[in-house]
Formats: sequence, structure tokens, C-alpha cells
Amino acid sequence: MTRIVELRQGILKKNDELAAGLRASYAAAGVLVLNLVSSPGTGKTAFLERTLFELRKRGARVAALVGDLETDNDARRLAASGAPVRQINTHGICHLDAEMIGKHLDGWEDVSLGGVALGGLDYLFIENVGNLVCPSSYDLGERIRVALLSVTEGEDKPLKYPTLFNSADAAVITKIDLAAPCEFDRGLALKNINEIRPGIRIFETSAKTGAGMEEWLGYLAEQRDRQ
Amino acid sequence: MTRIVELRQGILKKNDELAAGLRASYAAAGVLVLNLVSSPGTGKTAFLERTLFELRKRGARVAALVGDLETDNDARRLAASGAPVRQINTHGICHLDAEMIGKHLDGWEDVSLGGVALGGLDYLFIENVGNLVCPSSYDLGERIRVALLSVTEGEDKPLKYPTLFNSADAAVITKIDLAAPCEFDRGLALKNINEIRPGIRIFETSAKTGAGMEEWLGYLAEQRDRQ
Repeated sequence: MTRIVELRQGILKKNDELAAGLRASYAAAGVLVLNLVSSPGTGKTAFLERTLFELRKRGARVAALVGDLETDNDARRLAASGAPVRQINTHGICHLDAEMIGKHLDGWEDVSLGGVALGGLDYLFIENVGNLVCPSSYDLGERIRVALLSVTEGEDKPLKYPTLFNSADAAVITKIDLAAPCEFDRGLALKNINEIRPGIRIFETSAKTGAGMEEWLGYLAEQRDRQ
Repeated sequence: MTRIVELRQGILKKNDELAAGLRASYAAAGVLVLNLVSSPGTGKTAFLERTLFELRKRGARVAALVGDLETDNDARRLAASGAPVRQINTHGICHLDAEMIGKHLDGWEDVSLGGVALGGLDYLFIENVGNLVCPSSYDLGERIRVALLSVTEGEDKPLKYPTLFNSADAAVITKIDLAAPCEFDRGLALKNINEIRPGIRIFETSAKTGAGMEEWLGYLAEQRDRQ
């Protein structure tokens, strides 16, 4: 076991170093980078789709990297917003790491991606592989880590997956249009999130109805201005 | 990378050996063992709660092991069925492995668990950590691996997480009472599951209304008889 723990620490250490390099590049380019983490099926893609669409409507320059084990379904969905999007297929790996991000940012100026270089961006969103556990350990150099949780998943998720919520800068509750049929206990969910990460900013949203999106976009603009 | 791959193969090989031992013990004891795998929030616990309750009502001798990173919430929920239940807290590990199962079966005859020894059981259910990726690689010696998917998660999950669905013996669609508000495309979900694992048995269930539970219980009895 000692050897495995040491190796794991080595991998994370290497990742942290690469992430620090990425963080410096993002800062130099003046782009606000967010890492979206949740369980599969929380609705990260729908939420991001709406976010990209709304930001573009407001004239912001946005792009996205999206991680999945297989398929480019999510990249195709997100590209419909008009933003440059790249799919990262991890082929069995359960999280994104800094090395994958670095590789997929290389040549981002590619014409097929709309000629957008990192320096020309206001926001870069990274949609992680759907997983509440492993992505928590891998820093991608992001400035804001967002933990998403849908009303369909049960209010106890923050308590059962504390590492993610504890390392998040913002929490987004998704699919609130389904709160009633799911008998979602809003008070309990907010209490549980706050128990793990006291005082964290929480957004209650529906990508379908648009509820909560204004507040979320306000937060993004505010964070962008603080760059 | 070679060193990591080799080490990972070593870990999985060791797990496979332990799992083979468990499989032999289960067979000798005449207990049907099932491993339930899904994303967090799919409703594994609610589904298992109802399964335990219905099986006990029919006179079956059942028990459960339940894996979570933290908390014993699920064990407490499942214990309400009257069945002996043990919580496995993995403290950061994203899956159950054969060693954890072996350890938690030791002394299962403990009085506080109702004096039920493995040999006195008809069914043992293992509820895995909520994760669609990592548990796929870890054999727990189970005879039946069940992949669960809720109508709230999106129909493309089998395509995006093929390893789990490809290694499963049965698929359970949960929360079908929410199919309408979620605009669940049943045909597409069935098509996607069948694309990854042609001919797999699929159950469409609601732990809330009891829909589909009779068919599922019939399948369990049928598999139990084939022991």
C-alpha cells in the first residue's frame, strides 16, 4: 500500500505543478477559467450550453473544453452555442488532469475552432468527466471550481461526497424546475452544502426555464472584473 | 506511465484473485450476490430499500453491504427494512474492492447484525459507491452486476460510460414516475443500452410507486433458483 500511496502522491504532485503553470498562463491571458464538476446526469452540459449562449449574447468571448470517457455528444451540443469547443475523450480515465488540459489548449488558435486564441477569451469553461469523487483531487489551474448538484439526486450528496464540495468555490443546484415532482427539500440541501463549505455562494438554476441564470451570470461578470 | 499501468494491473490482478475467493465462498454458502452500480443520486438506496422490504415480505433471507465515501446514512435507511446491513466507508476511495468486501463479511455472524451468517442468506446485495467509472473495474465476486440509470440522468449515459454497461448482467431504469416531467425518451434509452450490451435484461422501475418491482423480484427468484 505504501508504494501505491507514494505513487499517487507523485502523480498529484506532478499534476499540481502542471496546474500551477496553466494557472499562470490563464492569468497572463486574462481569461477566467472555471472547472465544472458533478455526478453524471446532473445537467452540466445543459447548464453550460445556456451559460455559453447567454454570455455570447452579452458579447463575451467564451470557449469550452469538455471531458467524457467516450463520445463527442457534449462537444457537439455545446458547439451549437457558436462558441469554440473541444472534446477531451479520456478513454476510461475517470477525471480530467492538468496534462490533458494543456494538450488540448495547444493549437487552440486552430482555424477550425474559429481562430480564437486563449488571449482573446474572457471565459474558458472546463466541463469535467461526470464523477463526484476523482476530479476533486485534480487541480486544472482553474480559478473557480463549481460543484453542481441536481434536485433529482438527493439532498445528502454534499455530506456523502465532501471532498468535492469542500474544494468548490461555488455550488450550483440544477433542474429546479423538477423540484416539486422530486419532492426536493431545498432547506435541507442548502443546510448540507453549508455544513461542508460554510458561506459558499449557491445558485439555484434551471437551464430549461432560465431560472437563476441572471444571478449566475452576474457572479461570472463580477469574478471576471476581479481578474 | 508504464510503471503506473503495471501497478494498476497488479492491483486489479490482486483484486481478481480475492474476488475469485469470494465468489467460491458465496457459491458454497448458496447465496446469490448482486453488485449495484450507478451514478450518485440514481436512487440505488431507494431501489434496494424496496427490494429488501419486498423480499423479506416473501420470506427471503436478505442482507446488504453499502459503500459510501462518508456517512452511514444509507445503512440506516436500509436497516429500516429489518435486514442486516453493514456500511463500508471508503474515506476517499471511489469504489468498493474485493478486500473491503472480505473484511466486512468477517464476523458477519455478529449478534448485533441479527445473528445472520452468510450461509443463512438467500441474497446479499452490495450497493457500490456512486460512480459510473471506477467500480466497473473491480470484481466483488458478485454473480450479477446491475447497472442502474435514472430517467433524470439523460438517455446517453450508456454510450458515455460504456465500461459499466458492457460489464453488467442487468440494467435497471429507476424513477420512471418522473419520466414525464423529465421528458425521458424511453425508446432512445433502451436503444442506447442495447447498443452497448445487446440483449441485456432491462427493468423499468419506480421505488416510489412500485412499478416494475414484480418483474425485478421475479428475475431475482429465477436467478436464485439457478444457484
